[in-house]
Amino acid sequence: MAHTKIKNDITVQVTDSFWKRYMDVVRKEVIPYQWEALNDRIPGAVPSRAIQNFKIAAGEEAGEFHGFVFQDSDVAKWLEAAAFSLENEPDEALEKAADEVIALIGRAQQEDGYLNTYFTVKEPDGRWSNLRDQHELYCAGHMIEAAVAYYQATGKRALLDMMCRFADYIDQVFGREEGKIRGYDGHQEIELALVKLYDVTGNEKYLKLSQYFIDERGQQPHFFDQEKEKRQEDRPFFWNESYGYHQAHVPVREQKKAVGHSVRAMYMYTAMADLALKLGDSTLKKACEDLWGNVTSKQMYITAGVGSMEFGEAFSTDYDLPNDTAYTETCASIGLVFWAQRMLHLQADSKYADVMERAIYNGTISGMDLDGKKFFYVNPLEVKPDACSHRQDHHHVKPVRQKWFSCACCPPNLARLISSIGHYMYTVQQDELYVHLYAGNQADVQLNGQKVKIDQQTSYPWDEQVNVTVTPEQEKAFTIALRIPGWSKGAQVQVNGEKVEYESLVKNGYIYLERTWKKGDQIDLIFPMPVEKIRANPKVKENAGRMALQRGPIVYCLEEADNGQELSSIKIAGDAEFRSSFQPDVLGGVVVIEGEGVRESGDSWEDTLYQPVQKQSAPVSVKAIPYFAWCNRQPGEMVVWIREGN
Amino acid sequence: MAHTKIKNDITVQVTDSFWKRYMDVVRKEVIPYQWEALNDRIPGAVPSRAIQNFKIAAGEEAGEFHGFVFQDSDVAKWLEAAAFSLENEPDEALEKAADEVIALIGRAQQEDGYLNTYFTVKEPDGRWSNLRDQHELYCAGHMIEAAVAYYQATGKRALLDMMCRFADYIDQVFGREEGKIRGYDGHQEIELALVKLYDVTGNEKYLKLSQYFIDERGQQPHFFDQEKEKRQEDRPFFWNESYGYHQAHVPVREQKKAVGHSVRAMYMYTAMADLALKLGDSTLKKACEDLWGNVTSKQMYITAGVGSMEFGEAFSTDYDLPNDTAYTETCASIGLVFWAQRMLHLQADSKYADVMERAIYNGTISGMDLDGKKFFYVNPLEVKPDACSHRQDHHHVKPVRQKWFSCACCPPNLARLISSIGHYMYTVQQDELYVHLYAGNQADVQLNGQKVKIDQQTSYPWDEQVNVTVTPEQEKAFTIALRIPGWSKGAQVQVNGEKVEYESLVKNGYIYLERTWKKGDQIDLIFPMPVEKIRANPKVKENAGRMALQRGPIVYCLEEADNGQELSSIKIAGDAEFRSSFQPDVLGGVVVIEGEGVRESGDSWEDTLYQPVQKQSAPVSVKAIPYFAWCNRQPGEMVVWIREGN
Repeated sequence: MAHTKIKNDITVQVTDSFWKRYMDVVRKEVIPYQWEALNDRIPGAVPSRAIQNFKIAAGEEAGEFHGFVFQDSDVAKWLEAAAFSLENEPDEALEKAADEVIALIGRAQQEDGYLNTYFTVKEPDGRWSNLRDQHELYCAGHMIEAAVAYYQATGKRALLDMMCRFADYIDQVFGREEGKIRGYDGHQEIELALVKLYDVTGNEKYLKLSQYFIDERGQQPHFFDQEKEKRQEDRPFFWNESYGYHQAHVPVREQKKAVGHSVRAMYMYTAMADLALKLGDSTLKKACEDLWGNVTSKQMYITAGVGSMEFGEAFSTDYDLPNDTAYTETCASIGLVFWAQRMLHLQADSKYADVMERAIYNGTISGMDLDGKKFFYVNPLEVKPDACSHRQDHHHVKPVRQKWFSCACCPPNLARLISSIGHYMYTVQQDELYVHLYAGNQADVQLNGQKVKIDQQTSYPWDEQVNVTVTPEQEKAFTIALRIPGWSKGAQVQVNGEKVEYESLVKNGYIYLERTWKKGDQIDLIFPMPVEKIRANPKVKENAGRMALQRGPIVYCLEEADNGQELSSIKIAGDAEFRSSFQPDVLGGVVVIEGEGVRESGDSWEDTLYQPVQKQSAPVSVKAIPYFAWCNRQPGEMVVWIREGN
Repeated sequence: MAHTKIKNDITVQVTDSFWKRYMDVVRKEVIPYQWEALNDRIPGAVPSRAIQNFKIAAGEEAGEFHGFVFQDSDVAKWLEAAAFSLENEPDEALEKAADEVIALIGRAQQEDGYLNTYFTVKEPDGRWSNLRDQHELYCAGHMIEAAVAYYQATGKRALLDMMCRFADYIDQVFGREEGKIRGYDGHQEIELALVKLYDVTGNEKYLKLSQYFIDERGQQPHFFDQEKEKRQEDRPFFWNESYGYHQAHVPVREQKKAVGHSVRAMYMYTAMADLALKLGDSTLKKACEDLWGNVTSKQMYITAGVGSMEFGEAFSTDYDLPNDTAYTETCASIGLVFWAQRMLHLQADSKYADVMERAIYNGTISGMDLDGKKFFYVNPLEVKPDACSHRQDHHHVKPVRQKWFSCACCPPNLARLISSIGHYMYTVQQDELYVHLYAGNQADVQLNGQKVKIDQQTSYPWDEQVNVTVTPEQEKAFTIALRIPGWSKGAQVQVNGEKVEYESLVKNGYIYLERTWKKGDQIDLIFPMPVEKIRANPKVKENAGRMALQRGPIVYCLEEADNGQELSSIKIAGDAEFRSSFQPDVLGGVVVIEGEGVRESGDSWEDTLYQPVQKQSAPVSVKAIPYFAWCNRQPGEMVVWIREGN
């Protein structure tokens, strides 16, 4: 069993103006706000009661459990986000709050290691009686992730030790051995968390437990049927009576097409890729590749949103990508980032990094407004506010971000992604350093035992230039593999001012620069960023006759604030020219795209609905803004896929 | 109070090849099949139990009530369809079956006149306890309509007398007087039925009762709140907690915009128009006109389907007309025909007849397959079968017609509409005969006491020629007002071979031919029928960049059977030329439209979803068939709104 260390080889200090701004927002706004929310101190918001639940479980307060069965995970995700934030920027008060909550968690943990405030407070005899619905192992997984992150950020072992105790207990409860429950969780999460726990502890028990959960999933006789019978429950399962909702309809290696709840799917595929790597399991790797192909070439929005259906917050079917009823949960895009990262660990192929980049600049951060105070759970690609308020089949699509959700999964999930964005930029494999993302940062990397400093300077994603300074402790031969973004054409590379003819050095979308590097070596990259008109595969009926604008990794949209109402009346010619310019005062500083189109006029229509007439149109100036930044001004219509035509 | 007779002045014998075929299908297939269904003799179908319920209520069988609370109305609608069918074509066996079921209904009727098998069998103490949900007056209304139709068709009074007894009882129960229930039904229907009962009996009590129900609706304190409190029910009403679902949110005269359940709305607006006429009530007329304007210029599909939302089978909001999730229930289009007819009675304006015609040739009959064996409840304007089977928000859209529904409202409703199609062709007002629809028929009309025979010969809707022979008993001066269809341009009119310059004779879309008519006078009409490319108001986002094909009153669609899969890849130029030809072997004989378009190719796309490329397209022949006849061959995709482009 190969113990492939990845993260511990790299420390990244993010200096990037794009991400630093987001990280500051998370540190200054989101994490403190969420702390207040978890403690029920936000006037007017639905109380979370998440901290109170722990106090009650610890026997320190009286009262009832409140919230969802997975309420504990909100605390876990907050702790993990706090840990990542501390990694970037020490903050004594935050660390103190975290330490206190960790101590509280310790007091709520049961003698045998079990931790779950819902069952401890509300159903003490109900432990493990409904794995399908009750999220016990899901909550455990999030707390394990938090423990690993907090340990890595602070060196403090308290939560890690508690979670090892919990994981040891889980290992005694679950498995194929006589007397154990031969089951697995309805919401995958523990699987990827156990791999992380293995990574920091080196204890193979955790890896094997994760492997057990993945291998057992979907086997017959079906565990969810068995436990349901035990509960004497006879209702059919809500989601078409199918365990495809939990990706437990068939064993994971037989799954070729993404189905079911998209966040569950993403977390499971992440763990599968982890295990495929750690265990050298080629059948699991093949399943990951098949599923990746299905998701990214048949079921993914241009924003890297996944889950096109509100019912079950789920995948639907190939090429079914409606823009105005999309579910595209923020958490699902975040999960896609996790999965893409693990696929990159399995194989350095830019197709994985391309999707990861597409997700981090579009479908994830669209979930939060620019000042970190309001959030989208659902990230539609087209919004007409009137339809959202009148149509039940649009009721999940909110035309404006919300302050806080009673089901508060997305905001802390986004906080932990943004705070840990540095983790996604590089990987090291032996003497190869892979650069997956371009963003200002200073990284300390261990390459075959040698320390190398990497300094990236760039105004990405707005500017085409990236400058990388390489500073090995000593002159040394190693490889720097630079990703050529999938959207880029005509990339230029110089090393120390000399142009590199890289065509022969490219493998799977990376330029392999193998040389003896010395202090201060300079790599200069240019990735030209014209405005691209993107079309969708003709099988996607919703995007027929439409195009989306993309510049660099950023997907654009039209908003009512810039273009007036009835965005579907606007057409842009297939050969239209666009101007792009960085506008520091717009939406916190973004590149805005401007050009000319036409707008069909409704003037002559008055009160008619249908007429045998050509529509009249008049020239109109069109302004597009980055999709992630939509809905930061007055609310209104928004559209990503713009009609093409003269 | 003016007692305006309309129907009794006219007897129509339909000879039209289009409608005669449908009427024969209804007579030979639909009515017998439904009779078997009502008697639970269809193998494999969900048993209706509707007749059995009456037997149990009559004390002639033991057992439980089965079916919906409005199961009785299936029997009523069947009886009404049978009556209309007998009016056209005597059928001894059918009349015998009808007489027997009428006798059974008589035995199930209670001493006090009450009739409802659900309450008699299942909740004898529950009468009138939940008007909002339980459809008692709705069922009464349908049985009254059946009684009127059966009386008019056969002269037999048995059911009519029973229903007068029931109506008399209802009149004692409901009203503003002390001791009466000051309420009204959750599903409007009794209101229009009582007007019919008044028409045949001349008893003003029924008209006043109808007026009471309409006037009381939506008044405060709200009856549904009061009866709910009485039931000690505290659940909020499912539909956004709003009585807009029942068009009872405000008094009817304050309603300007169609909301709520679309069939309820249509039935209510029909009764409102009836009452406006019979009572000479101008405020009610104004409300009808406002609602008509809203429905037909903001909320109606090109097929005259109404109700764009599955949730509540309801109207949503102005210009919200999605094609693939439309509800557009067959019954709602049928209700729109009723309403349009009543608006015509109020005022002869072709805008009402245009919508009536649009509905009868498109959104109503699309609800039945050509051989009368299978039915659509929902009539979508775009179908992709894969989406219907995978997306919960499309679950109401069936890609193929169904044999019979457990909620079997639409098939008998369609049967009664088709069987009575002759009722919609003419109206008489004093010495004016209005010709609203063109179809082969022989009509006997009473014009100011004079008998006039009208003989229409036409192959409408396929052919542009209509020949009308006028045969008054004696030479006499009167007016024939001929509708110019809204879709028609350049209509030509001749009387006895002489061209009529009619521009100065037109009022509200009718040509008023006022002259002394003699036996055998001949009116020849030509309504040129080129293929029209119809565009939708730019406010309808779903139809942006699309056009629909229409020829005469018939709306066309593309089907996979003719045009292959991925209909959204097909584009037709805005100036494309089309050929149309009657094809006797296609779909029972229809005009087919053919032309050239282009198809975007997916060949170069392979497994990519998004690319910055122009799409490749190749010429393709396009064949369109009448929308009403779709899904009569192999199942597949269908689209009404075709992409426009080169």
